[in-house]
Amino acid sequence: MTSQKPAGAGTPAATTGPLRGLKVLELGHFIAAPFCTRILADHGADVIKVEPPAGEPLRTWGVQSRGHSVIWSLHNRNKRCVTLDMKAEASRPAIERLVRWADVVVENFRPGQLERWGLGFADLQRLNPRIILARISGYGQTGPYKDRHSFGAIGEAMGGIRYLTGFPEEQVDLPSVRTGISLGDDITALYAVAGVLSAVYERDVAGTGIGREVDIALYEGVFSLLEGILPEYGTQGSIRRPQGSAMPTAVPSDTYRSADGQWLVIAGNSDPIFVRLCTLMGRPDMASDPRLRTNVDRLRHRAEVDGAIADWAATLPAREAERRLNAAGIPASRTYTVADCAADPHFQAREMICEVQDPLIGPTLHPGVIPRFDEAGARGSIAWPGAPVGAHNDQVYVDLLGFTRSDVDTWRRETVI
Amino acid sequence: MTSQKPAGAGTPAATTGPLRGLKVLELGHFIAAPFCTRILADHGADVIKVEPPAGEPLRTWGVQSRGHSVIWSLHNRNKRCVTLDMKAEASRPAIERLVRWADVVVENFRPGQLERWGLGFADLQRLNPRIILARISGYGQTGPYKDRHSFGAIGEAMGGIRYLTGFPEEQVDLPSVRTGISLGDDITALYAVAGVLSAVYERDVAGTGIGREVDIALYEGVFSLLEGILPEYGTQGSIRRPQGSAMPTAVPSDTYRSADGQWLVIAGNSDPIFVRLCTLMGRPDMASDPRLRTNVDRLRHRAEVDGAIADWAATLPAREAERRLNAAGIPASRTYTVADCAADPHFQAREMICEVQDPLIGPTLHPGVIPRFDEAGARGSIAWPGAPVGAHNDQVYVDLLGFTRSDVDTWRRETVI
Repeated sequence: MTSQKPAGAGTPAATTGPLRGLKVLELGHFIAAPFCTRILADHGADVIKVEPPAGEPLRTWGVQSRGHSVIWSLHNRNKRCVTLDMKAEASRPAIERLVRWADVVVENFRPGQLERWGLGFADLQRLNPRIILARISGYGQTGPYKDRHSFGAIGEAMGGIRYLTGFPEEQVDLPSVRTGISLGDDITALYAVAGVLSAVYERDVAGTGIGREVDIALYEGVFSLLEGILPEYGTQGSIRRPQGSAMPTAVPSDTYRSADGQWLVIAGNSDPIFVRLCTLMGRPDMASDPRLRTNVDRLRHRAEVDGAIADWAATLPAREAERRLNAAGIPASRTYTVADCAADPHFQAREMICEVQDPLIGPTLHPGVIPRFDEAGARGSIAWPGAPVGAHNDQVYVDLLGFTRSDVDTWRRETVI
Repeated sequence: MTSQKPAGAGTPAATTGPLRGLKVLELGHFIAAPFCTRILADHGADVIKVEPPAGEPLRTWGVQSRGHSVIWSLHNRNKRCVTLDMKAEASRPAIERLVRWADVVVENFRPGQLERWGLGFADLQRLNPRIILARISGYGQTGPYKDRHSFGAIGEAMGGIRYLTGFPEEQVDLPSVRTGISLGDDITALYAVAGVLSAVYERDVAGTGIGREVDIALYEGVFSLLEGILPEYGTQGSIRRPQGSAMPTAVPSDTYRSADGQWLVIAGNSDPIFVRLCTLMGRPDMASDPRLRTNVDRLRHRAEVDGAIADWAATLPAREAERRLNAAGIPASRTYTVADCAADPHFQAREMICEVQDPLIGPTLHPGVIPRFDEAGARGSIAWPGAPVGAHNDQVYVDLLGFTRSDVDTWRRETVI
């Protein structure tokens, strides 16, 4: 395991990575905006996160350890946490200096909320003409549904992925399945990173010198991943249906039960891999069967091919089947639990399982920083986990922005911070 | 609908967006690298895609229209398509000029393939010291499993999402579900965009002037989205289990059957939204029940709360329930099919459903460019759909790179291109 030491409340001097120098102001809560800025912070951006004086709602979400949320530790690592009551008139000088300091603002309030705080894009531009504003929301900043309430689950339903994530109706009468993670929020966060860095490119590399407002909608992030499904509908009117565990366009690629009751994903869907798979299974007859030669052929005989693989998989424990498949050059994996991930030598060798000493929740594990840059010293790292409420107030308001200690004390007394 | 006209084979002059000026060389196939470069191309980057003389395998994948793949049209739009036999010695002058031209190379061959072509990172740097190389693979460029064969499905299984995307074992004996899309590839493509643009930032904005090798692994992209699940395991040893359609940490957020047999996702998981939902359902008793006041309370009474919502949903057609829920400020959506997406006024208003006249597959639909930048004239657009094999050979080899027509004719005769 890779062991990382927290540096007290953390300072930007402790961070590493290609984005060192990029200044990001997060006006975010829950998942989408915080995950976007975490990816930036993981790679060295200086992210200042503004929370209400009581802390943002994610601090009380999900599983708790020692009275603190474990997801907080992860999604807010490497960030400086300050508090500010955006509704209070007295917060205005602080927010103005923060906006003047920043290259980028990332937010995920409902459309119109920033404007109600006097912080719409035009207001921000008056404070800082180079500012880039990334806005994440359920439905986007425009269009007939923009004022609807949303959550990630709704973006997943409307974006088309929930319908597809299920078994065929004729097979079982069950609803579609959630992926078990905040998938819609996560995808949107990744698009927001792309939007932010594209706007930085335009401003600072192409050299327009001008910032931009970038509008990222949850349902659109999800919808954009439907690959050939929209052009397919557009040319032929065909509507893609849910397919359970199978891949509709390739055979064999499915999930099979092992002798010890685990599930194995086996992807034998290229012609040479299929031949290797048949050989491994002791089915040379299938390897040379002209009816099963190409993927198009095998699509016509899905039940026969999948049946043979299921019969073979049922004869072996999952780990042994996985070992034999990989040794024979056939893509295969058990469906890993988080415990499988944490114990796996490849995850370990790639520093994906990092021990973190978190002052709030105690010793824990974080996933490593991705993508992975070549030089260890210059790649992103876990400098510190999600900090306590207001942990960086003095560091940011006094040392960085030049307010006096007496200003900060007054704000504290009046719960402005 | 937004109608877009293709401009013959397409030239960079026809593109728009914040990444105009960024020069990208794609040595990719199938989904992950092509989707990464498509996002860059959608925002104006000049992407030159190199295929073998017969074209890359995706051209024959999935649903076909007029003998051409519909997914090709989408994932290779806005790119210049050239052919080159990377194995042929005679291709060397062309590949060298392409590398000297590029800011960024994006590839998704198995680790070691580029090196076998004499195009490892050190080779590329000798040709172009500023080059950035983004490498997408199943297991990454290092570690004990790096030489294993992989596909997206395997990254999803090993990264932990397949296990979570299913019903609890005690409920049904069914394998976990595929999301119906190439989710692992797509997530990795988005991380690759983040990696590329971060490396560009470091080189051109922070100003190191030096390119980097970025290593993006499918299983790590997937694993990185497990949010609190690893820290949860790290603090308490608890292993997150699949939960079917429900959200394990919030009640109510689930999928319910309507009177007309459709499925509705309803997310009533904040205290004020829950009160509004109870009021809408005619259940003021539940709205004021102290046992159901907070999310923590409701987690203890999941069956009771979900039962009441299921009973209510079963009394109304899906569209009517959806209308009433949204009017009352409760996040809700049917599980949209692609036909629902294409017909929806919000998708239409946001230009997410674009008519494209594709010379290969005929008239079709593409999703719009996201994220959405503020000024229409300067945002990304669909300048042309995926081009025919070698459509840009003359434009790139002669006009851009300065080879003679006679060079290109010779290569054509000798199937180097």
